[in-house]
Amino acid sequence: MSQRALDYLEQHRDEALKQLGDFLKIESISSIPAHKGDVRRAAEWLAERLKEAGLENVKVMETAGHPVVYGDWLHAENAPTVLIYGHYDVQPVDPLDLWETPPFEPTIRDGKIYARGASDDKGQVFMHVKVLEAVLKSEGALPVNVKVIFEGEEEIGSPNLDPFVESHQDLLAADVLLVSDTSLLEKGKPAVVYGLRGLCGMQIDIKGANTDLHSGGFGGAVQNAIHALVSLLATMHDEEGRVTIEGFYDKVQPLSEEELATCAALSDDEKLKKQLGVNELFGEPGYPTLARIWGRPTLEINGIWGGYQGEGVKTVLPNEAHAKITCRLVPDQDPQEISELIQRHIEKHLPPGVTVNTTLFDQGKPFLTAYDHPAIQAAGRALETAYGVPTTYTRMGGSIPIVETFNRVLNLPAVLMGFGLEDENIHAPNEHFHLENFDKGMVALVHYLYELKNAL
Amino acid sequence: MSQRALDYLEQHRDEALKQLGDFLKIESISSIPAHKGDVRRAAEWLAERLKEAGLENVKVMETAGHPVVYGDWLHAENAPTVLIYGHYDVQPVDPLDLWETPPFEPTIRDGKIYARGASDDKGQVFMHVKVLEAVLKSEGALPVNVKVIFEGEEEIGSPNLDPFVESHQDLLAADVLLVSDTSLLEKGKPAVVYGLRGLCGMQIDIKGANTDLHSGGFGGAVQNAIHALVSLLATMHDEEGRVTIEGFYDKVQPLSEEELATCAALSDDEKLKKQLGVNELFGEPGYPTLARIWGRPTLEINGIWGGYQGEGVKTVLPNEAHAKITCRLVPDQDPQEISELIQRHIEKHLPPGVTVNTTLFDQGKPFLTAYDHPAIQAAGRALETAYGVPTTYTRMGGSIPIVETFNRVLNLPAVLMGFGLEDENIHAPNEHFHLENFDKGMVALVHYLYELKNAL
Repeated sequence: MSQRALDYLEQHRDEALKQLGDFLKIESISSIPAHKGDVRRAAEWLAERLKEAGLENVKVMETAGHPVVYGDWLHAENAPTVLIYGHYDVQPVDPLDLWETPPFEPTIRDGKIYARGASDDKGQVFMHVKVLEAVLKSEGALPVNVKVIFEGEEEIGSPNLDPFVESHQDLLAADVLLVSDTSLLEKGKPAVVYGLRGLCGMQIDIKGANTDLHSGGFGGAVQNAIHALVSLLATMHDEEGRVTIEGFYDKVQPLSEEELATCAALSDDEKLKKQLGVNELFGEPGYPTLARIWGRPTLEINGIWGGYQGEGVKTVLPNEAHAKITCRLVPDQDPQEISELIQRHIEKHLPPGVTVNTTLFDQGKPFLTAYDHPAIQAAGRALETAYGVPTTYTRMGGSIPIVETFNRVLNLPAVLMGFGLEDENIHAPNEHFHLENFDKGMVALVHYLYELKNAL
Repeated sequence: MSQRALDYLEQHRDEALKQLGDFLKIESISSIPAHKGDVRRAAEWLAERLKEAGLENVKVMETAGHPVVYGDWLHAENAPTVLIYGHYDVQPVDPLDLWETPPFEPTIRDGKIYARGASDDKGQVFMHVKVLEAVLKSEGALPVNVKVIFEGEEEIGSPNLDPFVESHQDLLAADVLLVSDTSLLEKGKPAVVYGLRGLCGMQIDIKGANTDLHSGGFGGAVQNAIHALVSLLATMHDEEGRVTIEGFYDKVQPLSEEELATCAALSDDEKLKKQLGVNELFGEPGYPTLARIWGRPTLEINGIWGGYQGEGVKTVLPNEAHAKITCRLVPDQDPQEISELIQRHIEKHLPPGVTVNTTLFDQGKPFLTAYDHPAIQAAGRALETAYGVPTTYTRMGGSIPIVETFNRVLNLPAVLMGFGLEDENIHAPNEHFHLENFDKGMVALVHYLYELKNAL
C-alpha cells in the first residue's frame, strides 16, 4: 500500500476535479457523425493525461471507426500485468430540455457532478488515470505492470474492438482485465462482478398461405400463421417458467451453495414487486430471484407481430407471423449450441400447414471468473478497505460483449469493479456521478494495484 | 312464367346496357367525402329508373349518411311480398394506374363490362330494376308484391342501415328477402346461398410490469407479457385445430347428412392447396373442407403484437402484448354468449404475473334459412331453368351484416341469389361483370318472381 499515493490524491483533488470537468466538456458522442472530431479530441485529451501521469508508449491508435487510446507502464519485474479497459465516448443527450444544467457544462451539486458521461464512463476512466498518476508521482513506480485501453465506440456496440483486440494480442497480453463500467450494489455498498450472462437469439418467421386470407372465406380450412407461431412459442416454456427446449439446461453450471445463499440474502422480492408494479414475480421455480437473474439461463420473446394491429376489427386470416427471441446464457452453455437446440425444437414442434425460417442474431458467450479467483478476492479486499464495509460478490444478468472479447481472445480473467450507482441516469438526462465514489473508488483502486501484486 | 317479359328483356338489351353504362359512370364512392354528391346522384338516377319501370312510392330517403332508395309495387293480391336489397355505392378505385380502362368509363370487352361497381353491386341492382320493368311493361302486373331497398353505404359497413330498418319496419315488412350481391359457384354453375356465419371477437391486452424491462437485468424474475399472451392464446385450440374454449360447440347445429355430402362433393382440396400455395390444409378434423368453412365455427387470431418489431435484436422484456381474435359462428351459437365463454376462458387460463383487459368488437348473429325452405328451393328452380344445369345450395363462411339486420328486425328468411363470379376483381382494379350472367340472371329473376308466387 502507498499512503503517499493516497495523500497525493487528496492534495490534488481540486485539480483532478477541474480536469474531469474539462474531459466532460468534450462532446464525444460516438453515435453522431457530426461529433466525430469531438470523439477524437477526447481521445487526444486522454492520451495527454496518460503521458502526464507517467505512462509510456501512449498513443491514439486508429480503427475503422473512432480511435483507441493505449498506454502502458511495464517496469514491475516479476509482477503481474493488469489491462485496464474503459471508454471515453458517451451517449447522445436528447431530450435536451430535461437537463437541469447543460449536458456538456459539468456542474457539481450536492456532492455529485452532473454531465453526460460523468458516470458512464468518463468519470470512471479518469479515476484510473489519476490513480496511476498518484502512484507513479509519489512512488516513482507501480507495484504491477499496467496497460490501459480506452475505446471510443462502446456506446455504439464496440464494432471495431473485436478486430482491434484480435490484431493486437501481444500488445494487450496481460494477466487480468480490470473494468470500471458497472455499479456498486447500492450507495455505500461496494460490489465486484465476477460473472455475466451470454446471449444468443433469432428471429422466427412463419409463413402460411401465399397471401393474407379472409377469415370468412377460408377460416377453418387453412392454418393461420399466428396460430402456428403462438402454438410453437408456447412449447418453449412450461407453466412454471422453465425453458422446455430439449438439452437447454444440460451444460448449465449449478450455482454453489454459497452463491445461492448470497442471492437469497440479496433478493428483496417485495421491493422488486413494488418497483415493477406487479403482484407477483415469476420464473424458474426453486431459485431465489437474483439467482434466476444472475445464474440461470432464460429464453425471452422480445417481440412478436403478425396480422392486423390497427384500430377495431379486421377479419383477416394472416399468412405471416414473426417473433424475436433471445436467450441469456450462463456457463457452460454455448450460444451456437443453444441456437441449434432451439432450431431443432422449432423443426420438431412446427404445427402443420406452415413453413418456418430462422435468422440468428449475434451471439455472446457467458462469462465467469471463478468466485474465489485471487484477482476477484483481491478486488473485494481493496473495496472493503476503501469503503469500510464488506464487499458483495455478484454476477450480472446482462451481457458485456467486450468482456467476452477480452476473455476469448486474450484468455483473461475479468474483474468488474465499478463505481457508478444504478440511479445515476446513465443514458438519460441529468446523468451524474457521486463524488463520494470518485474519491473512495480511487482509494480502492490504489489498494487494488498493491493487492494484485501479491495476489497473482 | 312470362315469355313476354323474357322477350321484352331481349328486345331492350341494347338500351339496358346503355343505361347500365350510365349508372356505372356515376362515381358513387361512399367512403370518400368528396364523392358525396355523386353518391346522391346515383340514388336519384336509380329512383328515376324505378319510376320508369313502373314502381310506385319511389323515393330517395334520408339517413344520417348516404340516402336509401325505396320503391314498391303492391297490387298482387293474396301473393307474397318480396323485399329486394342491393347497394348502389362502390369501392374506391386506387391504384388507378392498374386499370386497363378508366374505372368510371364502362367498356365492354370479351363479353364482360369493365367498370367499378359492374359486379359489386350496381350491375346486379340494375338487373332487378330491368326485370321488374320487363314484367310490368309486358304483363301490366307482377306475380308477387315487391319492395326494393337500395342503400348507399354497404362499402363502408352500412352504418345507417340498422337504424333505418328499425325505424321503417312497416314500410319494409315482407315475406322474404332477396339479395343479389354474391357469386355463382363458378362460371355456368348457379348457386343459392342459404346460410352465413356470424361474428364476434375482442381485443386482448396483456399488461405485466409498469414498463418494458431489460432482459439482462430482469429476465428470469418477472413474467414477460408476450409469454403470457402466447401461453394464453395457445390454450384456445388443440393440436388438430379444434377450438378448446369450454362450451364453444355446445349450441352448434350439426350439418345434415345431405349438407355434408354436398360439402364433400364440392370441396376440391388439391385445387385449394394450389391456390393458397400450401402443402396441406388444416382445420377441425372429421369435416370436408367446405363444411369447415360454411358450417363449422372458428376462432381466429387476426393480429398479434408486442415488444420489438424492428431490425435486428433488442433484448427487451416486454411489459405489454396484444391480440385481436374473432370467431365465425354458426347457428345456434350466440355471439354474446360465445364472447362470455371466451372471457371466462381467458380469466381461467391467464398465466401468473400479468393482468388482462378485453374489449369486445361488434357482433353479428349467424344466419340460416332452412335448406328446404320453399323460397330457397324456388330460387334453385329458377336458376336451373335459366342456366340449364342443377343449382348448388351452399352456405358461405363470411358474414353479411345486413342479412342479419333484416332477419333480426323484420324476421325475414333470406335468399342470396347472386350473379357475380369470384374472379371479377371486386374491390380491385379492372372490376368487371360477365354479361352472360347479366342476361341469364335476369331470366332467372323473372322465373323466380313467378316461382315465388306459388311457393310461399
